[in-house]
Amino acid sequence: MSKAIYPGSFDPITYGHLNIIDRAAKIFDELYIVVLHNVNKKYFFSCKERVQITKDALKDYKNIHVESYEGLLVDYAKMKNINVVIRGLRAVSDFEYELQLANANRSLHEDLEILFLMTDTEFSFISSTIVKEVAKFGGNISQWVPKNVENAIIKKISNNNV
Amino acid sequence: MSKAIYPGSFDPITYGHLNIIDRAAKIFDELYIVVLHNVNKKYFFSCKERVQITKDALKDYKNIHVESYEGLLVDYAKMKNINVVIRGLRAVSDFEYELQLANANRSLHEDLEILFLMTDTEFSFISSTIVKEVAKFGGNISQWVPKNVENAIIKKISNNNV
Amino acid sequence: MSKAIYPGSFDPITYGHLNIIDRAAKIFDELYIVVLHNVNKKYFFSCKERVQITKDALKDYKNIHVESYEGLLVDYAKMKNINVVIRGLRAVSDFEYELQLANANRSLHEDLEILFLMTDTEFSFISSTIVKEVAKFGGNISQWVPKNVENAIIKKISNNNV
Amino acid sequence: MSKAIYPGSFDPITYGHLNIIDRAAKIFDELYIVVLHNVNKKYFFSCKERVQITKDALKDYKNIHVESYEGLLVDYAKMKNINVVIRGLRAVSDFEYELQLANANRSLHEDLEILFLMTDTEFSFISSTIVKEVAKFGGNISQWVPKNVENAIIKKISNNNV
Amino acid sequence: MSKAIYPGSFDPITYGHLNIIDRAAKIFDELYIVVLHNVNKKYFFSCKERVQITKDALKDYKNIHVESYEGLLVDYAKMKNINVVIRGLRAVSDFEYELQLANANRSLHEDLEILFLMTDTEFSFISSTIVKEVAKFGGNISQWVPKNVENAIIKKISNNNV
Amino acid sequence: MSKAIYPGSFDPITYGHLNIIDRAAKIFDELYIVVLHNVNKKYFFSCKERVQITKDALKDYKNIHVESYEGLLVDYAKMKNINVVIRGLRAVSDFEYELQLANANRSLHEDLEILFLMTDTEFSFISSTIVKEVAKFGGNISQWVPKNVENAIIKKISNNNV
Repeated sequence: MSKAIYPGSFDPITYGHLNIIDRAAKIFDELYIVVLHNVNKKYFFSCKERVQITKDALKDYKNIHVESYEGLLVDYAKMKNINVVIRGLRAVSDFEYELQLANANRSLHEDLEILFLMTDTEFSFISSTIVKEVAKFGGNISQWVPKNVENAIIKKISNNNV
Repeated sequence: MSKAIYPGSFDPITYGHLNIIDRAAKIFDELYIVVLHNVNKKYFFSCKERVQITKDALKDYKNIHVESYEGLLVDYAKMKNINVVIRGLRAVSDFEYELQLANANRSLHEDLEILFLMTDTEFSFISSTIVKEVAKFGGNISQWVPKNVENAIIKKISNNNV
Repeated sequence: MSKAIYPGSFDPITYGHLNIIDRAAKIFDELYIVVLHNVNKKYFFSCKERVQITKDALKDYKNIHVESYEGLLVDYAKMKNINVVIRGLRAVSDFEYELQLANANRSLHEDLEILFLMTDTEFSFISSTIVKEVAKFGGNISQWVPKNVENAIIKKISNNNV
Repeated sequence: MSKAIYPGSFDPITYGHLNIIDRAAKIFDELYIVVLHNVNKKYFFSCKERVQITKDALKDYKNIHVESYEGLLVDYAKMKNINVVIRGLRAVSDFEYELQLANANRSLHEDLEILFLMTDTEFSFISSTIVKEVAKFGGNISQWVPKNVENAIIKKISNNNV
Repeated sequence: MSKAIYPGSFDPITYGHLNIIDRAAKIFDELYIVVLHNVNKKYFFSCKERVQITKDALKDYKNIHVESYEGLLVDYAKMKNINVVIRGLRAVSDFEYELQLANANRSLHEDLEILFLMTDTEFSFISSTIVKEVAKFGGNISQWVPKNVENAIIKKISNNNV
Repeated sequence: MSKAIYPGSFDPITYGHLNIIDRAAKIFDELYIVVLHNVNKKYFFSCKERVQITKDALKDYKNIHVESYEGLLVDYAKMKNINVVIRGLRAVSDFEYELQLANANRSLHEDLEILFLMTDTEFSFISSTIVKEVAKFGGNISQWVPKNVENAIIKKISNNNV
């Protein structure tokens, strides 16, 4: 049975991520979405919130598991005994960063394989950062994120401003 | 009558910006320079200062208007009823960022057109960040910004240090 | 009255070109499509064919003129007394080539302004080369070029093979 | 049983290709190496030679099949009923070309998935073109291609010169 | 006698830096490693610590001098009366940043020459940032930094956490 | 005494090359300009012409030697017993090509060091290809090449057309 990991901070999950996930879920029998948490980084949503929002967005997939992890991706992969990691590529800047990361991860764990999918063009410009930025100024984000994510962002922003 | 918007944070305006503005002001009948303000970002100059410094640097142009705006560029464009935005391109990293931004803005406002000009080579390495960095260490910035900008930077640095 | 030139070899015109042309035709009052011919280059369609195919594809636009030119773009621009050139940008490799070309053209004609539009994402991967390559192997190209272009390509290929 | 296709012209196969093949052969149960032939292109080795050299270089793998195909990759994939294609990425220029190709192929065959592996750094600069160029000038290519490929190149060059 | 400067923040020095230093030390008679300090930036190691760690890592070289400097690189170069600066290039993103920096520095000091070496492929993905990130999560960094650097990082992390 | 090689096809030499040569000639005691010839490539000027034109353009430099070579750069370097090669970098596409070439050359000759200089911005868009293309259409190339090169190009073009 083929298994793969799709790691990210998912702060929050967008239609860009969902494009990769939907395609990866057809290639592999089981797909593990791992919400990475780094105590030194600032997030918009808490780790718990990111897991919940991601789970809600993916509730219709039978072969997808959503988990959180605080640590190195290579350690999560060893723990799960899964050697295949999926990553999306949108642009040249993604490519360079991912190349560096892939080389570093393979230097730490030589059996780890990172497989890249090109994000489909209609989603290639979406990023969690742009979604949050536009939402803060009251712009329409419904074409970039699922309904549950849109609601969570709007609620978070209105709470922060109170 | 043709109109265009040239948006930016202008923190502060440099000869790189002026290269694009001077050329755009010959192509369009009216050019609106909009100093964007984002309350979540840190600036070297206040919004009011950025508008004033930009106005001073552009006082000889008859067809240029300088304004500030706090919000999304697409909302400013709708408010002004102007569909053409001008942006400068210096390097590949600019290109990728601008491509993402242009796609996001057109996703929010399908009639918006973003037109790009390549910054002339002699100004292609100038950025507001480098200007401020060099000024902080007492380096000569007179070849990168107009006199009024140079004075404003030096004054701001000496005030901050007192 | 604002005028602009959109130059290319158009061998043949694709939906990628049409995306740029349609948008440029809304920004400028008159748009001159110039089919450049270089006697040292090999083309799939003759210059005359390229002009005809392009005219057919653009016959519904009132403010578009299609012409051919054998020579430097800067000389065509001077002859027409038009200082604005439109170019499409799809990818980083386009950007670098266009940056070099823009600088060379401005070095030859300092008043020439080259304005770039980013090709919309759904057309960003289309090139005349890929269209011809796929057509040669009998693949479906109807989603990449207008009907008249598709017919012309299929006819040309079947003639070449006879 | 998971299956994947690894297409290329393999003119000739190098340690760069072998790096990708070796890793892909561990991820998928069956790997189809398809030597693409295009009658309009010039090759150093004939299609038959490329297949034989590739087979020799891969004879120790039990789950690898080497075939040739003249036509579109999407048609080969449909014929084989395999939806997964593997490609190697070495550099930014690869990335842009592959992004364009992936989008074109998915436009022709929406279920096709192209998975990318980053070539390991020690092989990232090797290309069939450089191997042949160096060999023509009598340089040492044994660190870039397997022994059977090196012999085939040297034999071909000496035959061409006679 | 030929002299060159190799500037950086060295927070901390990695095998990537050492690759460049080792090669530069063979090309030039004397090599000055300058640990730049900028009071506005946050570092992992103090300036004093960075100098000491760098000295320890380079103690076997007879023609290398390690110094710290707070100010512009061009002013250090003038003070030392050395016109040649060495920089390593790993990736396209490095290239664009270095191009901008080189142009800015030459605009400030027209006799300054910046010479670039490509980091050898096996070290091309190493960065001080990745080293520290992996160390914070307890990953193995011994293949990326010398023993004395590894010890210093581990000690610093354990002190910070106490 | 420090020595360096500056290799190229110089078909023909431009102010872009001269920018690099002039700067390299100040850094190294002796500079060897090597005009590479590859019998499989097509040139505008013959090898003999390229050497002569390059010599004429550099006749005022005391420490510059112009030679031709047919073979691998690494073999020329070994023959001359010079380990330092100079290359100019203009753009990202240059960078990727040069990175590949540098790695291939160091794989063939591990002591060879390739040092890169960034071409100054005002010359960064000049290429031998653009110079010849513009000259063929009768455009002005005097700002891109020295007088002797301009004359040689014009003469060659008029001879070819006769």
